[in-house]
Amino acid sequence: MPRFEKIEYRPIPVRELFLEMKNLSELMIDLAYSAALFNDKDLAEDVLELEKRVDNLAYQLDMTIMLAARDPEDAEALAGVSTVASAADKISDAAADIAAIVTQNIGVHPIVGEIFEKVEERLIRAEVLNNSILVGKSIDELKLAAEMGADIIAIRRDKDWIIDPKETEKIKVGDVIIARGAPEGLKEFRELCEGKRLKLGG
Amino acid sequence: MPRFEKIEYRPIPVRELFLEMKNLSELMIDLAYSAALFNDKDLAEDVLELEKRVDNLAYQLDMTIMLAARDPEDAEALAGVSTVASAADKISDAAADIAAIVTQNIGVHPIVGEIFEKVEERLIRAEVLNNSILVGKSIDELKLAAEMGADIIAIRRDKDWIIDPKETEKIKVGDVIIARGAPEGLKEFRELCEGKRLKLGG
Repeated sequence: MPRFEKIEYRPIPVRELFLEMKNLSELMIDLAYSAALFNDKDLAEDVLELEKRVDNLAYQLDMTIMLAARDPEDAEALAGVSTVASAADKISDAAADIAAIVTQNIGVHPIVGEIFEKVEERLIRAEVLNNSILVGKSIDELKLAAEMGADIIAIRRDKDWIIDPKETEKIKVGDVIIARGAPEGLKEFRELCEGKRLKLGG
Repeated sequence: MPRFEKIEYRPIPVRELFLEMKNLSELMIDLAYSAALFNDKDLAEDVLELEKRVDNLAYQLDMTIMLAARDPEDAEALAGVSTVASAADKISDAAADIAAIVTQNIGVHPIVGEIFEKVEERLIRAEVLNNSILVGKSIDELKLAAEMGADIIAIRRDKDWIIDPKETEKIKVGDVIIARGAPEGLKEFRELCEGKRLKLGG
């Protein structure tokens, strides 16, 4: 097994690379704090995996920016993009540092818990099992926000991450869903994912 | 003028230092992105100032943690707090990097603007002038969220920052308010701050 994987350059628009880095880094901070609060190893592992992805994106973006700069003015303007991208990379590193506390069993002082307890909004990570009524439904159909004050912010589908999924995105068996919301709504939502609750609403 | 200011150790509970670092670092990211999008130098200066504050908090927290650890178990648990605090410090550095693009007139590539344009929620920074009807009112009384979908997330009062102010906090002349919300509501809110709109609601 090779120790370092070569990252191949694929032509992806700067815009897309940059947007994905920004969104991922922000999501990672939320995930990392939640992982620390609930001592959730799965969530922490997700963060560490996403960190590798952001590193990869940063590398792709650097190459793309170099190829995109055609004159000094271009280069100057793109330098700003590069700085913001580096910042997103730094943020994702910070998230990975927090996640590593959880995966390395360092343990979190009660103070950390106490502080996050006060945050009303929470994140959960729930896997969609095959008897869940969510399977095959689009996010739009679920009306989660109205029904239970929960909001799907990301879906992990096999090796892919769908960040801020579209309303038309359909839930599949095996999806790991990251949702944000008030604790009560999230509890209901987890039961829906895991097939323990078979009716939407009321 | 001394080049380096000595930071004096003041006994502040770890809990408070830690919570402030976490909240500030998250706010700074939002502020920095907004500063980059709107090329807002004042907002960028705020971020750079907050970065110094987070550095100072990090230093205080390190000292406090050292003094708080009484046995190896304590030290182990506190190591986790220290890691999360360092992560918050890293996040605030990243925000400062973004803000520096604005203060150094590096300029932001249209791509950055384009991407942030898509974000529906915005931040504004508005100063409360002395003919504003907001002066003397508590946040609770304003019912901003209901009236215009805006939310006050921080107040800068002289040298102090009030992050996530309480509902009972009263607005004063000269306050610089950072609010989040939909573009339309924020426009109205700015007019209220600057005394250009003299009636709340409708």
